[in-house]
Amino acid sequence: MPTYNAPLDDMLFLYEKLRNNKNYNELEKYKEVTSDLVKNILEEAAKINQNIILPLAKSGDENPTKFENGIVRTPPGYKEAYKKFIEDGWTSLSCDTKYGGQGMPRTVSAFFDEMISSASLSFKLYSELSLGAYNCINHHGSDVIKNKFLPKMVEGKWSGTMCLTEPVCGTDLGLLKTKAIEQQDGTFKLTGQKIFITSGDHDLTENIIHLVIARASDSPKGTKGISLFLVPKFIVNDDGSIGPRNGISTGSIETKMGIKGSATCVLNFDEATGYMIGPKNKGLSSMFTMMNLERIVVGIQGLGLSEIAYQNSLNYAKERKQGKSNKNNSQNGNADFIIEHADIRKSLLNMKSIIEGERALCFWLSQQTEVSLNHNDIKIKQEASDLVSLMTPVVKSLFSDMGMEITSDAMQIYGGYGYTKDQGIEQLYRDNRITPIYEGTNSVQAIDLVFRKLVNKNGDIISKYIKLIKSDLNNIKNDKIKPFSQKLNIYIDKLNDFSNWIKEKINTSKDDANAACNDYLKVLGLVAVAHSWIKVLEVSYEDYESNKEFYEDKIQTANFYFNRVLPRIESHYLSAITGSEYIMNFKFN
Amino acid sequence: MPTYNAPLDDMLFLYEKLRNNKNYNELEKYKEVTSDLVKNILEEAAKINQNIILPLAKSGDENPTKFENGIVRTPPGYKEAYKKFIEDGWTSLSCDTKYGGQGMPRTVSAFFDEMISSASLSFKLYSELSLGAYNCINHHGSDVIKNKFLPKMVEGKWSGTMCLTEPVCGTDLGLLKTKAIEQQDGTFKLTGQKIFITSGDHDLTENIIHLVIARASDSPKGTKGISLFLVPKFIVNDDGSIGPRNGISTGSIETKMGIKGSATCVLNFDEATGYMIGPKNKGLSSMFTMMNLERIVVGIQGLGLSEIAYQNSLNYAKERKQGKSNKNNSQNGNADFIIEHADIRKSLLNMKSIIEGERALCFWLSQQTEVSLNHNDIKIKQEASDLVSLMTPVVKSLFSDMGMEITSDAMQIYGGYGYTKDQGIEQLYRDNRITPIYEGTNSVQAIDLVFRKLVNKNGDIISKYIKLIKSDLNNIKNDKIKPFSQKLNIYIDKLNDFSNWIKEKINTSKDDANAACNDYLKVLGLVAVAHSWIKVLEVSYEDYESNKEFYEDKIQTANFYFNRVLPRIESHYLSAITGSEYIMNFKFN
Repeated sequence: MPTYNAPLDDMLFLYEKLRNNKNYNELEKYKEVTSDLVKNILEEAAKINQNIILPLAKSGDENPTKFENGIVRTPPGYKEAYKKFIEDGWTSLSCDTKYGGQGMPRTVSAFFDEMISSASLSFKLYSELSLGAYNCINHHGSDVIKNKFLPKMVEGKWSGTMCLTEPVCGTDLGLLKTKAIEQQDGTFKLTGQKIFITSGDHDLTENIIHLVIARASDSPKGTKGISLFLVPKFIVNDDGSIGPRNGISTGSIETKMGIKGSATCVLNFDEATGYMIGPKNKGLSSMFTMMNLERIVVGIQGLGLSEIAYQNSLNYAKERKQGKSNKNNSQNGNADFIIEHADIRKSLLNMKSIIEGERALCFWLSQQTEVSLNHNDIKIKQEASDLVSLMTPVVKSLFSDMGMEITSDAMQIYGGYGYTKDQGIEQLYRDNRITPIYEGTNSVQAIDLVFRKLVNKNGDIISKYIKLIKSDLNNIKNDKIKPFSQKLNIYIDKLNDFSNWIKEKINTSKDDANAACNDYLKVLGLVAVAHSWIKVLEVSYEDYESNKEFYEDKIQTANFYFNRVLPRIESHYLSAITGSEYIMNFKFN
Repeated sequence: MPTYNAPLDDMLFLYEKLRNNKNYNELEKYKEVTSDLVKNILEEAAKINQNIILPLAKSGDENPTKFENGIVRTPPGYKEAYKKFIEDGWTSLSCDTKYGGQGMPRTVSAFFDEMISSASLSFKLYSELSLGAYNCINHHGSDVIKNKFLPKMVEGKWSGTMCLTEPVCGTDLGLLKTKAIEQQDGTFKLTGQKIFITSGDHDLTENIIHLVIARASDSPKGTKGISLFLVPKFIVNDDGSIGPRNGISTGSIETKMGIKGSATCVLNFDEATGYMIGPKNKGLSSMFTMMNLERIVVGIQGLGLSEIAYQNSLNYAKERKQGKSNKNNSQNGNADFIIEHADIRKSLLNMKSIIEGERALCFWLSQQTEVSLNHNDIKIKQEASDLVSLMTPVVKSLFSDMGMEITSDAMQIYGGYGYTKDQGIEQLYRDNRITPIYEGTNSVQAIDLVFRKLVNKNGDIISKYIKLIKSDLNNIKNDKIKPFSQKLNIYIDKLNDFSNWIKEKINTSKDDANAACNDYLKVLGLVAVAHSWIKVLEVSYEDYESNKEFYEDKIQTANFYFNRVLPRIESHYLSAITGSEYIMNFKFN
């Protein structure tokens, strides 16, 4: 079974040292969230993830969630762990104190999301969607609904889901068929089938609060006729007690490649009672409040699985002797630890430089998210919101794809042992394989980025972002960072050219933009991670003497990223700008 | 369950049209192998693979090989299929007629290897290692041994294995501990443990002929003290009948991520009787006769799994409606087939252009292999052998890695459905994941390429190879190929620069070469595939009028490869030449 040590040093470094963010520091809401408090929280988080949740990964893979006689049963150990999990208040970490939450910022809760993704993604999913549903209800629900449902959800006694997908509609929600018929009392009766519903049914909570998109009987076709409904598994009485079972049944659960401890359900709604959330026919935009935050969390899942894969392959490389390194002159077959071999070291540094860069980017994005939600100045709020919108598909796709690369490279370091079930490394790879798919496939993210996020009603967001990075680079005072910033400048110019090319193509040849969008997302992502490394480098040089070993590690890891990872941009750019005419004209047999 | 149609058109195209190879055409041995004969063989091969073997993939994944009371049992259907498989003579396809084989060249048998890899890799492995063992015995065994063992192996009644790996020695065979003690009658008693033995035990054949590397009691340490032994599961009497059980027992079988129908065994040798094959202490070089051919076949496995993944994702893309293409102006939610979307088309063409290019490269390599084994002119034979040596690690690694990319991209096209077991697509991905690991990990291949294959005792092989491609490009007469050859010339220059860089580093900084070797292998491989595409293009333009649709498809597919795949070289080259000092000096915690 893989081992796991939460990367507390790196997390606390980011929290304490990367706070040179004026807008974030102005937020009244988090003035009392001190470094000491955060340190305590993260240390406790490390304990529960390392000791209680980590073993659930293997348990869930070996004893997948079962569907028996209409009931979904989670794997052995899940119930006990979930009880402890909610008792210790982990479901409430980032929730509003008004409903019993702890009111921590995303700059803290994102670290928790990473840790629990490392420990057991399957187990994480039972509370993750609850938080998504919580956010959505909190933003769009009426006070009556909020007071009735949120406290129990924050407490973790009730969980939540997001019910979007149907058999003929995944990416394309305009095709949905689930109907909602309004009743005289203002409630609705929902009928239809939803599929791929994560935590759609299970035995961990007393109630499950489904957020369901459906079409009211008098609504138009397509995406403009979709409304959002809250549909509880059990009706909740006015006094808050659990009432009768609602008209929802579980049709089946999926047998999957990975995350086998997670229940992925087919849910049948048969005149189930629902309450409309937010305005009629605006369901998609309400749902996307939650989807966007959720997409960032999927990126963090990829980061978490990358981290545990890295840790274990590093340990293995230090223990496994095989082959002679180039420094070994022994003639009698003495082998070196494989960490002495240049190509193994390269592979490990590749993982480390991506992981730590991603974590820094994610921290910056968490700061921006909080500014976008809580800043008093509307202009600042809007600008932060645009940056979050821009980076959401990037983080979701880049981190999940890198998670595939890193979990695969970790397996490769184990050789044949990596392919067996004993080591648990292959499970990380299988578990991570869902992340480029769910919450909108990575291609959907790339299309969203290119067609909706680069330029929006507030202006040319990507140009503002590029200017922001350039201005950061121009303001660097330490000459030691020059070699890094010079390299990044080359690639920012490439990003700029690529952005101009793609903005033109959006108007003149949408297919060119579409065929280039995945490459474009990667280029933007690689630059964004490099930008985050620059921020880390600034602190590292400035603060060098206080913790030489730590900062030297950072500087050298960044150096690897700039030498070996950033040049990937070249190939993405060169291949993307060949256009799409020859692709669109191709006749597939 | 995935469907499969053997790509007979493409295979027959290669066999009939890409035979402009003087050295190959001079081989007396294959004068009678006509296109008609090959067509008949491949059509029959397609039938057994599509109808009998394909269903075994699912059967093996759902009912993995079992180990019960010391006996290894293959999945349901394997026995019946294997009986038919050997009755129809498929194990004997490329074997010497002297021992009952059909004497077909690798230019034919490689196509069969591809088809059966597409249909069921697990099932394939039960005969694949037999062929490896056959080749090794045929090259290095005495006549007595050959006459005793080969006819039954060719017939498929007995199977074979290659026993190399031990718990502490995988890549590094010098560490092996299995002992062989010589007896008075000239036989040996072998004692030790071998692990990861593919088809090490099973219930498909009457006997299993293990080829085992071990150290004779008076042999030196390290790789120079390793000899090769034939150790049958059952002793074979002088009259060829099966005698008593030899001292070999199965300790366990591995539980694996994929290829679950294949038995991967721990074998315990306890004073098992063995016969030395080839000269004492030269066991590794004898074994590598078989390992090298085997490595090419592993590349072909990646190709086969890529092909079936492509076929199924193409079919799915034609059936699944989701989202509007850029040409669709409908406002009411009408969706297009996803094959209308540029990024899906790009993904499919990426697969197709790699697969068909790889197949053409593999065909060229099969020709070279036959020349290296059978040409009358020793110089020509040697030159072909050097090219085969050069391309063996490239084909093994590139095709297996591309297999990961392609099976993953195919899953991605299926969206959420791809992650479920129902579709069988995720199995292709899991099954293929062993190919970058076994028969020497892809990093081991890359090290082998760089340190042993670029330059050898016969000279500067890579320079000869680059000259060969350049001369082919210079001889192109058709102007329509110019845009392709101009692009390739750019990358040949890069390959040349990279080769010179790496040859220098082999002498001045081995770690630089080591850290660059994986990137170097990719660059060489991408150029080699492009070179194969050039050969295909020459025929396509020359022969255009005879089959417009087929050749137009080839030209457009090649165009994609040159536009979108070949530029990957840029990033590999740029990142590799940053050296290794910063990698070797890094202090891992």
